[in-house]
Amino acid sequence: MLYFRNDYGAGAHPAVLEALIKTNLELTPGYGTDPYCRKAEETVRGLCGAPDAAVHFLVGGTQVNKTAISAFLRPYEAVVAAASGHICVHEAGAVEQDGHKILTVPSSDGKLSPALLREAAGGVVNEHTTVPRLAYLSNTTELGTVYTREELRALRTACDELGLLLYCDGARLGSAMDAGGTSLADYGETCDAFTIGGTKNGLLFGEALVIVNPALQPCFRNCMKQQGAMLAKGRLLGVQFDTILREGLYLGLASHANRQAKRLASGLENQGISLLVPAESNQVFPVFPDGAVEALGEHVEFEVERKIDPSHTCIRFVTAWHTAEEDVDALLELTGRLMK
Amino acid sequence: MLYFRNDYGAGAHPAVLEALIKTNLELTPGYGTDPYCRKAEETVRGLCGAPDAAVHFLVGGTQVNKTAISAFLRPYEAVVAAASGHICVHEAGAVEQDGHKILTVPSSDGKLSPALLREAAGGVVNEHTTVPRLAYLSNTTELGTVYTREELRALRTACDELGLLLYCDGARLGSAMDAGGTSLADYGETCDAFTIGGTKNGLLFGEALVIVNPALQPCFRNCMKQQGAMLAKGRLLGVQFDTILREGLYLGLASHANRQAKRLASGLENQGISLLVPAESNQVFPVFPDGAVEALGEHVEFEVERKIDPSHTCIRFVTAWHTAEEDVDALLELTGRLMK
Amino acid sequence: MLYFRNDYGAGAHPAVLEALIKTNLELTPGYGTDPYCRKAEETVRGLCGAPDAAVHFLVGGTQVNKTAISAFLRPYEAVVAAASGHICVHEAGAVEQDGHKILTVPSSDGKLSPALLREAAGGVVNEHTTVPRLAYLSNTTELGTVYTREELRALRTACDELGLLLYCDGARLGSAMDAGGTSLADYGETCDAFTIGGTKNGLLFGEALVIVNPALQPCFRNCMKQQGAMLAKGRLLGVQFDTILREGLYLGLASHANRQAKRLASGLENQGISLLVPAESNQVFPVFPDGAVEALGEHVEFEVERKIDPSHTCIRFVTAWHTAEEDVDALLELTGRLMK
Amino acid sequence: MLYFRNDYGAGAHPAVLEALIKTNLELTPGYGTDPYCRKAEETVRGLCGAPDAAVHFLVGGTQVNKTAISAFLRPYEAVVAAASGHICVHEAGAVEQDGHKILTVPSSDGKLSPALLREAAGGVVNEHTTVPRLAYLSNTTELGTVYTREELRALRTACDELGLLLYCDGARLGSAMDAGGTSLADYGETCDAFTIGGTKNGLLFGEALVIVNPALQPCFRNCMKQQGAMLAKGRLLGVQFDTILREGLYLGLASHANRQAKRLASGLENQGISLLVPAESNQVFPVFPDGAVEALGEHVEFEVERKIDPSHTCIRFVTAWHTAEEDVDALLELTGRLMK
Repeated sequence: MLYFRNDYGAGAHPAVLEALIKTNLELTPGYGTDPYCRKAEETVRGLCGAPDAAVHFLVGGTQVNKTAISAFLRPYEAVVAAASGHICVHEAGAVEQDGHKILTVPSSDGKLSPALLREAAGGVVNEHTTVPRLAYLSNTTELGTVYTREELRALRTACDELGLLLYCDGARLGSAMDAGGTSLADYGETCDAFTIGGTKNGLLFGEALVIVNPALQPCFRNCMKQQGAMLAKGRLLGVQFDTILREGLYLGLASHANRQAKRLASGLENQGISLLVPAESNQVFPVFPDGAVEALGEHVEFEVERKIDPSHTCIRFVTAWHTAEEDVDALLELTGRLMK
Repeated sequence: MLYFRNDYGAGAHPAVLEALIKTNLELTPGYGTDPYCRKAEETVRGLCGAPDAAVHFLVGGTQVNKTAISAFLRPYEAVVAAASGHICVHEAGAVEQDGHKILTVPSSDGKLSPALLREAAGGVVNEHTTVPRLAYLSNTTELGTVYTREELRALRTACDELGLLLYCDGARLGSAMDAGGTSLADYGETCDAFTIGGTKNGLLFGEALVIVNPALQPCFRNCMKQQGAMLAKGRLLGVQFDTILREGLYLGLASHANRQAKRLASGLENQGISLLVPAESNQVFPVFPDGAVEALGEHVEFEVERKIDPSHTCIRFVTAWHTAEEDVDALLELTGRLMK
Repeated sequence: MLYFRNDYGAGAHPAVLEALIKTNLELTPGYGTDPYCRKAEETVRGLCGAPDAAVHFLVGGTQVNKTAISAFLRPYEAVVAAASGHICVHEAGAVEQDGHKILTVPSSDGKLSPALLREAAGGVVNEHTTVPRLAYLSNTTELGTVYTREELRALRTACDELGLLLYCDGARLGSAMDAGGTSLADYGETCDAFTIGGTKNGLLFGEALVIVNPALQPCFRNCMKQQGAMLAKGRLLGVQFDTILREGLYLGLASHANRQAKRLASGLENQGISLLVPAESNQVFPVFPDGAVEALGEHVEFEVERKIDPSHTCIRFVTAWHTAEEDVDALLELTGRLMK
Repeated sequence: MLYFRNDYGAGAHPAVLEALIKTNLELTPGYGTDPYCRKAEETVRGLCGAPDAAVHFLVGGTQVNKTAISAFLRPYEAVVAAASGHICVHEAGAVEQDGHKILTVPSSDGKLSPALLREAAGGVVNEHTTVPRLAYLSNTTELGTVYTREELRALRTACDELGLLLYCDGARLGSAMDAGGTSLADYGETCDAFTIGGTKNGLLFGEALVIVNPALQPCFRNCMKQQGAMLAKGRLLGVQFDTILREGLYLGLASHANRQAKRLASGLENQGISLLVPAESNQVFPVFPDGAVEALGEHVEFEVERKIDPSHTCIRFVTAWHTAEEDVDALLELTGRLMK
């Protein structure tokens, strides 16, 4: 079977695994108070151009989103997000469990814009309503679209105007940076807090949370602990991030994944297959006749996005740091044959 | 430095690490829906003699406690626990964050008993009070004491009488089974749910939750997801548990740790050093003059339990699967010299 | 000033006040365990044709909604509601505070339908999503529209099909019954739980919650207490409901309010003023040129619903049990003059 | 039956009821934005010597405690309270439901002291623990004991030293002020926030919350709304507090209740009946042989506090603003006869 189901199907990049093996029998203090975490935190601060940022390493994406959002907001404060946002649909109500409403705006490409923010957060706010307080972006979005530096800055301006914190869920931040031409420093500049996703880009697991805004920093580790989000052998996170952020590895892996997705997307389009949205990063959303989807399922692992019309279905192909060029070729040959 | 700080200072047991290395580049579905988790679940069910139990693998101890307890209880229901219980003092209010009161009973050895349960849960319960609904044990306890089979059965009887669920936090269950002569089947027989701790007994991370009571099983995975407690590369947990539970490895590691603790405890007592509680498992709580504590700190890593009187302090030594016999000898030599 | 701002601007209907005065110095047990509450509960059960229903009296609408919904649902379960639903926009995130997501569907008339329910609750549900579990209706809706018996039954059927509980927020249930030709028995037949609103129909305060579904009844009073929703002098609620539900008073007051709204709506339409939605109950939503709105504001109290276009605004007139026929006449004279 | 069950068995003091009757048909804006609330707020600020305090009127005691505490604390912050505190035992876990742990200290007289605060809040606090942040007092306590001005000031000093907010639950504040010689200004001076209880001292219902600390004031009304704690006809609270706080009525009623309790306590002691704690305010806790308790139950309404030994029980007599002198005499005659 060809594997285009997701970007967290394999284990760790060999260099990351090697680092874990090498440090395996060392004895360090727990919960992220070890030297590896310290060093990785410093690296992150440096790359983000945010020397005073607080950096925390958590295990997973839903965990970091819910821990951060609930730590940042007062009880009646709400989140603004695109309706397709990960926290809206794929986290089983994690943000609401911690007491916060998510105000959603429809967005055909999965992105927020200043106009959408104003629509969601600029209306009537009084003592009978929730108070919009945090804009949630995912970059890349759930549709694989990405933000440019200019877009991030425009959102920052809109957030300032609307009294919103800007939070970026960077579960696929490597892919987003490669595709959108942004750097970690751009997030350090524009966001109050953001994550650097490791799970989908070469780590066994791990998301780095960068809290730039000093008002959001105090006692965050108590919030982590309370949420069950502090890893006993915390150094596993430090060791992994320390490795992946060295010498361009993180961006390199993302770039590989994006390139394979681009090749795949072009190939599909050349075969006359339409895409739900242009393929900007490492996710491709082709629309196939239902019969083709079924036939593909015998040879390829992928996920179904949704029905487009009674006879067509949009599916999702995801590429990753380990996606082989030949697998893309093989997939294209398969789709070419099916669509002939 | 000698390391007796805790039992989660090292990485994984070599066999576990080997299994992770071997499967690293395999491509599997995520979130614990892979064959390794399936297999490990089957193994757990078999060992517990609970063919209909639901088995879930989570990353950490606080996480599994809060996810399980909040999934099992209705909003006004409360937990009964010894005042020294991990959920009472070391989890930053995780259970309360999810809305549940913990009713605590003082217990000099860290254990619950039928009498203590009756004291906590047998009083006035009406519409103005919380309703005691779940007894929380930790085995081994935070003081290293353990439960026997008879004690577990007596607690089960008391719980039935009081309308309580019985939940056992087995963060150190291996050590508890080795020391108390219980087997997984005893927990399958007496508990509504319990955990088999991996983090402190040879895994990089991981706690297996066994939900024996069928009424507590439905939709538990939604609760996990909502709590941020579902690992994307879930197979990492399956692979590790599959390895550690094979051929007696889990109990063997715990047994080694317990043996070293016993040697350490006997040695200390032979040196005239008193222990806060008898050393039953892999934690030893000696009481030293404050000066000795300070001197020890230059050569050994350990944790301070608490002041005993103005000039004495109780500290904690923890042994683990990787504690070398020579390190115990070296520690004893050190304490012997100090106490001369 | 003419008062058309809302239907909770005055105190209690004289008969209700009289009953409170008469019983003022009696000494009864607290928290709703008194004979007046017992009697009112019996009356409600009788009128609803639900002899086994649990009936509770709470103080306010947001309070009863949040207490009921959070008592009925497990943590990951979600509510389905029209986007204009009271719990979605006017309760400051009360349902989310208790941990539950509200899945909203747009509805131009504020009503849910089987089709909308299927759209919201019939999609992909798995362990990564919330699980739709309760359909929230308000009757009358926030736009004054009402449900017929047939519509309620169709919703019941759809809920059964979708595995949803049916909950009706009856803050204006009197008005809804009068306008839609339904009786309390219809709600007893179709809903799992519903409220009979007193605050907006003659009481100082008070909402009766009728829990028809026996599975939702246990320990509800603990939930009330935990939510701060149990009134110390609970008999105040029993006395009031006992009075208002006697001899048709409740429906009579609602009928009066509806009649005045109908007169007002007809009068406005005769003056060429368009309404946002047809006036079915005691709320009327006329659209005026902005200048007229301003001019009206000098003589009438009302609320602004929303801007319709750059030069028109929809406002809301509400009638109540105490709205004088002459006040409606005076308002119509005023609008007539303004729109000439 | 003689009534000594509690101080919320009757309705409102006649002057309060009169004010409600007089204003019944007035039409005002809702939710406490009316002139009566404005005026009562001003009165409270004046009496408390706290011109910048925020004053809010809520319906009940559990409601105001949970709303205030959850608005004031961050998620991981904890409350310190005497084990007998109302929030610990009689509120069905309301504070925990909103996510906060209560750290309890045993206190034989129900009071907190600087030493107890230091014991509870002065221990190890780190990222694995909750962070003690608010000291909860009730005055009078659940045992009827009261604080003096000096004690309040000493607690303030201890709170400053420990980084704690000081919150006083004044459900029986009138009784506490009369008995302890304190005035509202003392609470305005020493507390970050406190309540002035109306339910137990002449109102139909109502607790005034005074938030002195400006850092705790923002957006409190959103928290109220979210908690279902905003009364639609909010002026009912303003009208009542405006009346009761005029011309010494509030203190006068409390003083009457205290005097009757003193007479009752002296009489009982003269009969050789021992009291659990000295009767300082309007609650008396005599210890009777079980047989006497049973016999009393045929003529008097009271509550059972707890078993003292196998043959004795402590019960509670409560006096109120409406307790007749003759009823105290009659009760004493009865106990005299029983104890002969």
